[in-house]
Amino acid sequence: MKRFFLAVAAIFAAFSSANAGKVVLDSLYSRTLGSNVYFNVYLPSGYGKSDAHYPLTFLLHGLYGTHQDWPSHLTPVADELINSGECRPMVIVMPNAGGADVKHVQNGYFNMPGRPYEDFFFRELLPEVEKRYNCGGRKGQRAIMGLSMGGGGSTVYCQRHPEVFSSCYAMSPWLDNDGNQVGGRRSEKDCLAITCQSVCDNSALRFVQEASDETVSQLRTIKWFFDCGDDDFLFDQSVKMHQLMRSRKIKDELRIRDGVHNWEYWHTALRTALPFASRNFGR
Amino acid sequence: MKRFFLAVAAIFAAFSSANAGKVVLDSLYSRTLGSNVYFNVYLPSGYGKSDAHYPLTFLLHGLYGTHQDWPSHLTPVADELINSGECRPMVIVMPNAGGADVKHVQNGYFNMPGRPYEDFFFRELLPEVEKRYNCGGRKGQRAIMGLSMGGGGSTVYCQRHPEVFSSCYAMSPWLDNDGNQVGGRRSEKDCLAITCQSVCDNSALRFVQEASDETVSQLRTIKWFFDCGDDDFLFDQSVKMHQLMRSRKIKDELRIRDGVHNWEYWHTALRTALPFASRNFGR
Amino acid sequence: MKRFFLAVAAIFAAFSSANAGKVVLDSLYSRTLGSNVYFNVYLPSGYGKSDAHYPLTFLLHGLYGTHQDWPSHLTPVADELINSGECRPMVIVMPNAGGADVKHVQNGYFNMPGRPYEDFFFRELLPEVEKRYNCGGRKGQRAIMGLSMGGGGSTVYCQRHPEVFSSCYAMSPWLDNDGNQVGGRRSEKDCLAITCQSVCDNSALRFVQEASDETVSQLRTIKWFFDCGDDDFLFDQSVKMHQLMRSRKIKDELRIRDGVHNWEYWHTALRTALPFASRNFGR
Amino acid sequence: MKRFFLAVAAIFAAFSSANAGKVVLDSLYSRTLGSNVYFNVYLPSGYGKSDAHYPLTFLLHGLYGTHQDWPSHLTPVADELINSGECRPMVIVMPNAGGADVKHVQNGYFNMPGRPYEDFFFRELLPEVEKRYNCGGRKGQRAIMGLSMGGGGSTVYCQRHPEVFSSCYAMSPWLDNDGNQVGGRRSEKDCLAITCQSVCDNSALRFVQEASDETVSQLRTIKWFFDCGDDDFLFDQSVKMHQLMRSRKIKDELRIRDGVHNWEYWHTALRTALPFASRNFGR
Repeated sequence: MKRFFLAVAAIFAAFSSANAGKVVLDSLYSRTLGSNVYFNVYLPSGYGKSDAHYPLTFLLHGLYGTHQDWPSHLTPVADELINSGECRPMVIVMPNAGGADVKHVQNGYFNMPGRPYEDFFFRELLPEVEKRYNCGGRKGQRAIMGLSMGGGGSTVYCQRHPEVFSSCYAMSPWLDNDGNQVGGRRSEKDCLAITCQSVCDNSALRFVQEASDETVSQLRTIKWFFDCGDDDFLFDQSVKMHQLMRSRKIKDELRIRDGVHNWEYWHTALRTALPFASRNFGR
Repeated sequence: MKRFFLAVAAIFAAFSSANAGKVVLDSLYSRTLGSNVYFNVYLPSGYGKSDAHYPLTFLLHGLYGTHQDWPSHLTPVADELINSGECRPMVIVMPNAGGADVKHVQNGYFNMPGRPYEDFFFRELLPEVEKRYNCGGRKGQRAIMGLSMGGGGSTVYCQRHPEVFSSCYAMSPWLDNDGNQVGGRRSEKDCLAITCQSVCDNSALRFVQEASDETVSQLRTIKWFFDCGDDDFLFDQSVKMHQLMRSRKIKDELRIRDGVHNWEYWHTALRTALPFASRNFGR
Repeated sequence: MKRFFLAVAAIFAAFSSANAGKVVLDSLYSRTLGSNVYFNVYLPSGYGKSDAHYPLTFLLHGLYGTHQDWPSHLTPVADELINSGECRPMVIVMPNAGGADVKHVQNGYFNMPGRPYEDFFFRELLPEVEKRYNCGGRKGQRAIMGLSMGGGGSTVYCQRHPEVFSSCYAMSPWLDNDGNQVGGRRSEKDCLAITCQSVCDNSALRFVQEASDETVSQLRTIKWFFDCGDDDFLFDQSVKMHQLMRSRKIKDELRIRDGVHNWEYWHTALRTALPFASRNFGR
Repeated sequence: MKRFFLAVAAIFAAFSSANAGKVVLDSLYSRTLGSNVYFNVYLPSGYGKSDAHYPLTFLLHGLYGTHQDWPSHLTPVADELINSGECRPMVIVMPNAGGADVKHVQNGYFNMPGRPYEDFFFRELLPEVEKRYNCGGRKGQRAIMGLSMGGGGSTVYCQRHPEVFSSCYAMSPWLDNDGNQVGGRRSEKDCLAITCQSVCDNSALRFVQEASDETVSQLRTIKWFFDCGDDDFLFDQSVKMHQLMRSRKIKDELRIRDGVHNWEYWHTALRTALPFASRNFGR
């Protein structure tokens, strides 16, 4: 029976492209957070067979999600686009920022009381990834992207750390919580309430509105892309962001495609996002 | 030499699909306007070879344009989509609503002092087209679409005559002129000023905002599609329309693609617009 | 904890479109096969709330697959396309034709010694589906599509039963096994060998080559679509089919997109296949 | 009146993207051909405002065509894709290789009796373009693409001069004339007959079939893309080329889209071709 499955696997390997990347599960003990953090890493076909250096992309999950969400969506798309040349071979890191039980386990990409995730990300995760894997190393070799809460995280990370990433692709991003779009009006002061408050406190929209001219200059060093469904409940935020960016003369791309806040939308977004990151890596 | 060109033409005819529609120039004396009005008519391959009845689509040009703008863009796209079945064979009428000299020749789709074009359209043009050509005849067999001023015209025509068309596809539409987006602040009271004022007076945005519940019910009998470039100077209007439609629970589609206010955008829009009209014709 | 998950589910339900179809698992005892056969059924949003009748599409899996393969890919795409109007609401049936253990369990869509699946399909499954669900009933209300072995099955079913389906969409289809493309040269006479032989015996390519003029007329009553990746190991077969169809003047569509023989290809194919079936249903 | 048109022009300039390239008509006296040869040059926005060096793409017209064919199709697409970053700013040269009167004026990209165009292209045109414009200079900074006869020309130029271009994009290419696909069986020995014979003599298909292993290695240094309509009368040639390339293990891309041998196909092909050339320029 085991032999049978090997045979099936062999046949399927022959069916699909010879050039398939792989995803490895990795983790890191964070002193900042006082706990272990998991992350998945997509390594393109050929990684490790030479001393080639690769660009590095971070791909962030949404609220209710984990590092386990993206791999099954990412792998076939990255394999295909790298194989056809639409996307350069790159290392793609998918870290865990929370989990499904959002009321009882703190999640999110910002610093929150007792959980300075943003500090962890820039001081521990990013340097460690670049130490363990042959990738990144400078702005021109790094990109970030994500969905919903991860789209908002990507945007704010680029706003506050403009020297780190060359491009930002935000899918159906959660950029503010001024109208309690997520979580609703909360009486309980649980973990979800804290996450929602952190999105208010770190509003990506307000950041653009209030940016000094010097900050605006820095924002212009990043390539921006916002991609949201016409029936997404967060639709207004992507549009507002585009309007703010234009008012400050920061070039960005906006696309409104058919769809809602779901995986079908984010899966297809990868077909635009990966080539976007790819062509904006430094030369 | 003449024979040579015939040979070339024959070769090209063989190259391209056998099923090519044709465009005929037609005209109508309008009592309402007191002048002759030209319109081009796309007749699909096979038209007139049987007594088959066809759906009817109106395709409206923009400010500075005429009935001569659309045919070269429409024909290859309509031929291809009809040939592959993505679009049903249909009669497509492209009427003249003005001309390039917008300051000295009155244009636009609304009734203006001395030029009641909307009256002409519904009382003379539409009935006459359906008399001369074997097409249309009822809401389920009629669609309307257009670019810029023609996108605004299509929208308002459907708002005010919800019993006439089954669908409306507005490309980069000019839906209001509240901020003097077109024409700028005008001191001269020329034809352009009158056109701009008419767009204010017939605001498609205000129409949705102020619609009674009964009117809203009627608007829901139409399929709506708004399609605008992310760098279009009229971008805000399409987005505002989508937000208003949602707030009144009138279902519509919105797409923001890459692009500006130009023919490249409108040409590619036809690939979405024609199938949209096609699938919304009654069965 | 249970309450928590309900809350999460409620939030997600609010996030995504209100109009979501559902998949139900059904089964049928087949006298012809002497066993129970499972099939999944996609019911569009609103099904059962009125006495509305729906078109019926069969969606077939590939070798090594079962009725469980398609649902997770189909549901989000069908929901989106039905919601935006690109596809009419329809009932979609995904029957089981085999299983992963292809050497020891007979599978495939043709009649094989002791397993007349084609007879089962047309004499038992199809009539029973139309009895249990409010759908189909005539050629103009039925379509068929499938991947790989299911693409070949769809094609041959339409060739041999041209009065049953209005359209056929074959994804990366397995249309012949003349060159032992699948299974290789087999010494063992196991179930896989029998399946492979049945594909030789029921070659869709040879069928077109050898079709009488009368058969060709019947084939022209079906809308055909072949869709295969440029790096698919079965590439040559789709191309050959298109060439044969053209040589017999049977209109078909062919698309070669980027990709290989995998789920990424078939998932994206649904975005073309469902609207194709939809617009070819009778009016 | 003049002022009016200036005003209109100003308004339209404001409408469309500020970053518009321009096309200049240039020419060169060819000693090889003993005549003047025209070529159009697309210069991207910003060209000449700094000493920036640009990649160089040649874009070839088809039989019956001239250097005047491509500019109106190229400009809006290049402007849009460069503006959105999907394509790097590049210089695009569209040379004349013939003219509409193909029986009486010799045309084509190969050396023909008394008209060694290929020699002219590589010995005179290419060096002169790189002298006059700040572009190209090495394989990694050069691409070539074209339609029909120009697609065949691009392919053969890369086959015979593999050290010159980094990529080749062939649209509906004419790669052989073995079956008299173009021109038919000709009794007259006119210019068209000579062109057709030259395509036989310089068959791109035979070149791959007969290539030595060393030549195959060189062909692998080029990125290849073939793009042809499913209803194109030259369809078989693109498919055959892909099959030959795979049999020699030379990686290429093939796409079969909906369409025939016409400008609608080639215009839309630019959206794939320009990014393809762009991402294959050396880094």
